[in-house]
Amino acid sequence: MNMISVSEAIARLRKNSRVRVAVETCKLKASAGRVLAADIVAGINVPPADNSAMDGYALRREDWKGPDQPLVISQRITAGTPPAPLKKGTAARIFTGAEIPAGADLVVMQENCTLDGRSVRIERAGRVGANIRPGGQDIERGTVVLNAGQRLRPQDIGLIASLGIAEVEVWQRLKVAVVSTGSELVEPGIPVKPGQIYNSNHYMLDALLKVWGFEVVAFGITEDDPRILSEVMVKASRNADVIVTIGGVSVGEEDHVKAVVESLGSLDLWRVAIKPGKPFAFGDVMATPFIGLPGNPVSALVTILVIARPFLFDCQGIKNHSIVPLRQIALFDQKACGRQTYHRVRSGAQGVELFSQQSSGALYSTSWGDGMVVQQPEQDIRHGDTVDVIPYLLFN
Amino acid sequence: MNMISVSEAIARLRKNSRVRVAVETCKLKASAGRVLAADIVAGINVPPADNSAMDGYALRREDWKGPDQPLVISQRITAGTPPAPLKKGTAARIFTGAEIPAGADLVVMQENCTLDGRSVRIERAGRVGANIRPGGQDIERGTVVLNAGQRLRPQDIGLIASLGIAEVEVWQRLKVAVVSTGSELVEPGIPVKPGQIYNSNHYMLDALLKVWGFEVVAFGITEDDPRILSEVMVKASRNADVIVTIGGVSVGEEDHVKAVVESLGSLDLWRVAIKPGKPFAFGDVMATPFIGLPGNPVSALVTILVIARPFLFDCQGIKNHSIVPLRQIALFDQKACGRQTYHRVRSGAQGVELFSQQSSGALYSTSWGDGMVVQQPEQDIRHGDTVDVIPYLLFN
Repeated sequence: MNMISVSEAIARLRKNSRVRVAVETCKLKASAGRVLAADIVAGINVPPADNSAMDGYALRREDWKGPDQPLVISQRITAGTPPAPLKKGTAARIFTGAEIPAGADLVVMQENCTLDGRSVRIERAGRVGANIRPGGQDIERGTVVLNAGQRLRPQDIGLIASLGIAEVEVWQRLKVAVVSTGSELVEPGIPVKPGQIYNSNHYMLDALLKVWGFEVVAFGITEDDPRILSEVMVKASRNADVIVTIGGVSVGEEDHVKAVVESLGSLDLWRVAIKPGKPFAFGDVMATPFIGLPGNPVSALVTILVIARPFLFDCQGIKNHSIVPLRQIALFDQKACGRQTYHRVRSGAQGVELFSQQSSGALYSTSWGDGMVVQQPEQDIRHGDTVDVIPYLLFN
Repeated sequence: MNMISVSEAIARLRKNSRVRVAVETCKLKASAGRVLAADIVAGINVPPADNSAMDGYALRREDWKGPDQPLVISQRITAGTPPAPLKKGTAARIFTGAEIPAGADLVVMQENCTLDGRSVRIERAGRVGANIRPGGQDIERGTVVLNAGQRLRPQDIGLIASLGIAEVEVWQRLKVAVVSTGSELVEPGIPVKPGQIYNSNHYMLDALLKVWGFEVVAFGITEDDPRILSEVMVKASRNADVIVTIGGVSVGEEDHVKAVVESLGSLDLWRVAIKPGKPFAFGDVMATPFIGLPGNPVSALVTILVIARPFLFDCQGIKNHSIVPLRQIALFDQKACGRQTYHRVRSGAQGVELFSQQSSGALYSTSWGDGMVVQQPEQDIRHGDTVDVIPYLLFN
């Protein structure tokens, strides 16, 4: 079994990726983090009509004969009120955002005007079009403003609202079954007996998958018993779009996941040149894609963020989910180890510090810091080098 | 009214910040994004006891006399089963993660062993302590692993679970009242009449505040009527920890927010040297902090992200929420304008591209891209310069 590179592992996984969810309609107010299943096309101009960029007076340029010839104020237009056509030889009091009356071709800001009874004295009129925001300036009707595959951020939701759209077509949430294996696992809150440990991976994955907008189909802890595991996997394949297991994919006698998945579908065990996180399994259970993460918590976290995330995002219909790392100064030395290594670090004003203990068992290292340095397989890092850093937030 | 710098505006706001919410208990599984109100202290060692790092055989180093003297296998220890003390002169079959039996002082990986009936032939024994992960190696009992003020990420939740903790003390969600003013505003889904526009800011802010983990107390659209606005503000001050209004804080005749807030508390109008987003108001309504955002959607977004976010995060009890910008290549020229400018950009392999139209009305510019270039007031940006970029995700 040869080692494969991280990018090769991602590419192999993505060869199997396609959108695995159906479309549903979602109220705009509940759509944060949801993924558009169709383009958003502007059905109106934004702004809908020419409007004033200032508080001031709207007039026809040709009606202004100089500061000594005041114009009668023939109407008052506030934002939200429809204007009447502008009477010839008059000005309209107008406020920011209010619609320009037919006939007016510029707005003079109030600082350049003086009230004179029911007239206004205008010092300088400006050019035609001044202080008018034309209708459709921001968005023209028919423009595709957001593409299918966009995960909706607050500004996208604001943009959709500005077009008057109250409901959007989105992909259903990807259903991910999470199966933790291991008879030694105990749920938090219950005292551990000798030999037992707490099930931390399940809690971590549950939170992560929900942050990503997925629906978690939780199967709790499954004993190291092939018959029970097989029943759980069949159920998972019927109720989820993707199955993720944690642990149980190495070659030890007590690891039954491999045999069970092979009996129900197929399984490829990859040795990925990644540290932490070597054993990684991919296959299917009765045609439902299966991902087997390593049991070490840090390995599980790194492999799901780096290797599985692009695949899962594809399955959810998300487009453009690649990550551009930051460039920061390393405050540590680290020799190349032949594998792509993800060092847990913390950013400060001087650069990024390394957590003292990079054992793959210690989730503490990932909580201590705010991101990871990506070290290439043959890259020696010396104190002061500029290195690639991925803040955890960028994986969201 | 002098212009104040962005950092001065943030500092003035934060002078008024303190945690404004009470403590509540939260189930760990529902705690993603919540903010710890107390440190998390390890009550146990992780791992709880010495355990095997390999599948292999546990033995006493002194019992091994060479490969030609096999040891009888006296027990089989899987992960999760409590071991018996190791009988003198024997070996125990052991699996990864399983507890080391009393008396054993090393584990030999199975690749260096051969089964011989009920005994095992060991080629090389290794040193004392080999392949044993000591109890407490990852976390020692009594260690503070997470501090109060931490917003819980998936790995933090995994870490807390690994300590057996099923419930955490968190700050209640900050209640933020959102008040949109403007008689011209219409809710999406309803046809607009001439002069009206859709209420996009409210949808954007609602989503943003929820992404930040806050509870939104929505007051919908409030007409430009001082009496109605006053009633809404009183209600908001009683039902929320912070009040945010959008629009209505400039000096025009139709902007009543300023007068209403002044009558119920206090209001400072700041001209912040920020673009987009100049007018920014801060004060209180009957002792509830009040933030008045500009009505332009892009100005509202930039000012809440840049100026209000640090204050709001403080009020929620979040610590360490500063943002380190990325350094990327600018693919555009931009002269300094005397104000700190947030250009909407999109990252690509070559660097960051500028959106063609930086009008503050166009939310489209923020949806089109993935972040903002921060231009200092006196900084000329030339094509090819390395500039500060903040991806929107880092504001989350």
